[in-house]
Amino acid sequence: MAATSREFFTAKSVAEALSDFRPPHRTAPETVSLEEAAGRVPVADIIAGEALPGFDRSAVDGYAVHAQDTFGASESVPAYLTVAGSVAMGAPAGVDLPDQSAVAVPTGGALPAGTDAVVMVEYTQEAMPGTIEVVRPVAPGEGIVRADEDITPGSAAVRAGAPLLAHDIAMLAALGITQVEVHSRPQVTILATGDELVAPGAAPLAPGQVRDALSSSVGALVRAAGGQPRSPQIVGDDPGLLRDALRAGAQGSDVLVICAGSSVGARDQTADAVAALPNTQIWCHGLAIKPGKPTLLASSNGIPIIGLPGNPRSALVVFRLLGVPIVRRAGGWTAEQHMPSTRRRLSRDLPSAAGRMDVVQVRVAGEQAEPIFGPSALLSVLTAADGYVIVPDDANGLPADETVEVFLYR
Amino acid sequence: MAATSREFFTAKSVAEALSDFRPPHRTAPETVSLEEAAGRVPVADIIAGEALPGFDRSAVDGYAVHAQDTFGASESVPAYLTVAGSVAMGAPAGVDLPDQSAVAVPTGGALPAGTDAVVMVEYTQEAMPGTIEVVRPVAPGEGIVRADEDITPGSAAVRAGAPLLAHDIAMLAALGITQVEVHSRPQVTILATGDELVAPGAAPLAPGQVRDALSSSVGALVRAAGGQPRSPQIVGDDPGLLRDALRAGAQGSDVLVICAGSSVGARDQTADAVAALPNTQIWCHGLAIKPGKPTLLASSNGIPIIGLPGNPRSALVVFRLLGVPIVRRAGGWTAEQHMPSTRRRLSRDLPSAAGRMDVVQVRVAGEQAEPIFGPSALLSVLTAADGYVIVPDDANGLPADETVEVFLYR
Repeated sequence: MAATSREFFTAKSVAEALSDFRPPHRTAPETVSLEEAAGRVPVADIIAGEALPGFDRSAVDGYAVHAQDTFGASESVPAYLTVAGSVAMGAPAGVDLPDQSAVAVPTGGALPAGTDAVVMVEYTQEAMPGTIEVVRPVAPGEGIVRADEDITPGSAAVRAGAPLLAHDIAMLAALGITQVEVHSRPQVTILATGDELVAPGAAPLAPGQVRDALSSSVGALVRAAGGQPRSPQIVGDDPGLLRDALRAGAQGSDVLVICAGSSVGARDQTADAVAALPNTQIWCHGLAIKPGKPTLLASSNGIPIIGLPGNPRSALVVFRLLGVPIVRRAGGWTAEQHMPSTRRRLSRDLPSAAGRMDVVQVRVAGEQAEPIFGPSALLSVLTAADGYVIVPDDANGLPADETVEVFLYR
Repeated sequence: MAATSREFFTAKSVAEALSDFRPPHRTAPETVSLEEAAGRVPVADIIAGEALPGFDRSAVDGYAVHAQDTFGASESVPAYLTVAGSVAMGAPAGVDLPDQSAVAVPTGGALPAGTDAVVMVEYTQEAMPGTIEVVRPVAPGEGIVRADEDITPGSAAVRAGAPLLAHDIAMLAALGITQVEVHSRPQVTILATGDELVAPGAAPLAPGQVRDALSSSVGALVRAAGGQPRSPQIVGDDPGLLRDALRAGAQGSDVLVICAGSSVGARDQTADAVAALPNTQIWCHGLAIKPGKPTLLASSNGIPIIGLPGNPRSALVVFRLLGVPIVRRAGGWTAEQHMPSTRRRLSRDLPSAAGRMDVVQVRVAGEQAEPIFGPSALLSVLTAADGYVIVPDDANGLPADETVEVFLYR
C-alpha cells in the first residue's frame, strides 16, 4: 500500500532521530525572578560580579591568629596568646590582631586584618582571664575560607543550556543575582485528530466514540519538559480542517504535536497536512520502534513538528522518548539529557525482531524487572508499569536473567 | 563540648533516618482538574466507572467477519465474502453482519453485532464489486480489542500514594474522569537563621554579611518535591526570636525547615527552640553523614521538622537526600521513591572514614566519574557537579576504577 511504502522509505532509527533531528528554532528570552528560576534555562552563562564568600572568613569556631605564633606549640609546651577581642557574626572584624595575640571568631565570622590562620577552639583553653593556651600549631591558611575561594569575579556562576538546579539558585542568591534571563517556556500546540474523538469532559459517549486521552497526557509531558501546552484542540478526519488547524497552530507555537488518527488513511492525512505548511521538511515518516512505528518528524520554518501514532500507548512511548528532548531543546536545553534509570534482572525472555528498537514496559519487583505484555493500544500496560526496558535495534530480544537498565517513570 | 556530645549521643545513620523517621502528618485533600493533576498524589485509588475501550473495536484496518467463514482460506483457495457495508470512525456500526459476509472497518472502529474477528485488509482483495477474497483464515478474537480489555468497571484506574504520571492522566481522560481528589501541596516554612544573613536582593553587603542562599534554593527543592514554600524568613541569632518564628511557622505548615546558623552556639539554639514547640520529639541531633553531620530531625504535633546544617552546601546535600522524601511523604507519597542514577567508573580513589556515609560530588566525563573535592562550605563544588556518589557507612572509601552509581542532579 502507498502509506506503508512511504513510511518504509523514510524510516529512521530512534538513535538517528535523537542525534540528527535538530530543527533550529529556540524560544525567545525573558527575565524571571530567582524564586521562579529553578528549572528554567539561562540564555547565556551568568557571570559572577563579585567574589564569594566576599571576605576572608573563619571555617571553624576558634581564634584568629598569626600562624607563626603557634609554631612548636604542644600539650606540654603550649603557646600563650593574649585575647585581643572577639568578632560578632555578620559584623566587620572591628579589632586588630597584634603579634602574640588571638581574636575569638565564630564559624563564618570575618577575620581581623593580618590573620593568616584560625585555630579551632578545641585546641585552646583559657590559661587565665584574657590569655589562651594553644596546644597545637596551625599552618598558614588553616581554618580560613579565602574571600574568592568559592568563586572569583568574572567567572561563570552558572552555565547556559541546562535548567537551573537548586544549588545554582543558591549560588545566584549568594551573589545577589535576583533576576535571571532565561528561555521562555516553549508553547506547544497539541492537535488531536479523529472523527471518533470527544473531549474527556463531554457527555456520555455514543457508540463508537472515544475520549481524547492524549491532549492532557501529552500536555503533562510537555509541562514536565519545561513547556506550556496551549489549549487542546480536537480536529475531525478532514484534510482541510487539519490543514487549517495546523496552520493556525503554527502561529506562535514553538513545537507542534499532532496526535494522528489511528487508521492508515488518517496517517496519510497528517503527512499531507504537514507537507502543506510553509518551508516544510519531512525528516522521517516511520520510525524503527515498537510501539510507535507510524511516527512523523518534520519542521516548518525551523519549528519542530511531531506526528504521533494514533493509539495512546504508542503515542506516549514515542513522546516520552523523542518529544520531551525536542521540547527541551526548543527551550534552550543543549546540555546532555539523562533518563533516570535503575538496574534489574529480567524475569523472562524478551523476544524482539532485529532492525527496530523495542520499548517494553516492566514492573520492578525486588531485584527483578517483569515485562508486561499486551496489545499496543492498551493504556493499562503503561499504568501498571514502573518503567521500561529498551531492546536495542541490533538485538534479537534479551534473555531471562540478563541485567538490564530500567528507565523509571517516577 | 556539650553540643558535640549531644549530637553524638543522638546521632543516627542516613538509612535509619530514611526508614524510621516518619512523622504521621499528611496534607488535607483538595480537588483539581485533570489538566492540573499531573504530579499530584491521589488520596485514594481512583476506580473505573466504566469499561475501556467501552465497545468491541477493531485493532486493524480490515473487515469484520465471522471467523468460521474464513477457515481453510488460502491464496489458492480464498474465501469469498459479500461486503455488507462499512463502519465509519466515531459512529455506531449501523450494519448487520450476515453469514458469509464482511463489513469494512477502520482501526478503532466499532464492530457489527456478532463479529468475532477482523481480517486485515492486507489479506483481502476485491474479487468483484461487492465481494472480497480472503486469503488467510482468522481465529476467533483476532483483530479485536474487546470492550473491557483495557480496564474493567470497578477496578483501580490509578493508585493512591504516588504522583500521577502522563499515562495515568491519559487513563483518567479516557474514562471521562476530569476532577481528581489529591493531597494538597505541603506548605513548607523555611526559616534561615543567623545574624550575618541578609536577603539576596538587599543593598551591597557590609563586611561580615552574607546573603541568604538557602531560602530560595531549599524552596526550589521543596517545589520539585511537590510542595509550596511559604515566604522566606530570616531570623537573627536570638533564642526568643527563633522560638517565636518557629511557633508562628508551625501554624498552617506541613513541614518546618530551619537553616541553622553555622556556629556551634547557633546549632544549640535551633535544638532548644525546636524542643520548646508543643508535643515535640527530637528524633536525632546529628547524622552520620559528611557533609551534613549537624542535622536535626524532629516533629511537633506530628509535623516533621528538619534542622539543616549551617553551611549551604551541607544543607543542600542533606535536604536533597532527606528533606525531599519528607516533603513528598507529607504530601501523601507512600510508594517507593527512586533517585535517578547512572553508572560510571571512579577516576580516582575516594577516601572516607567508616561509620558515616560520604556524599561526594562528581563530574561525569565519558565513562568516568571524577570526584570534586573542596571545603564543605563551597557552593561551587555543587554547581560544578553532574551528580554525586555515595560512599556507604561501612566502607573505608572506594577504589579507583570501581563502577559506582552516580545519582544525577538533572
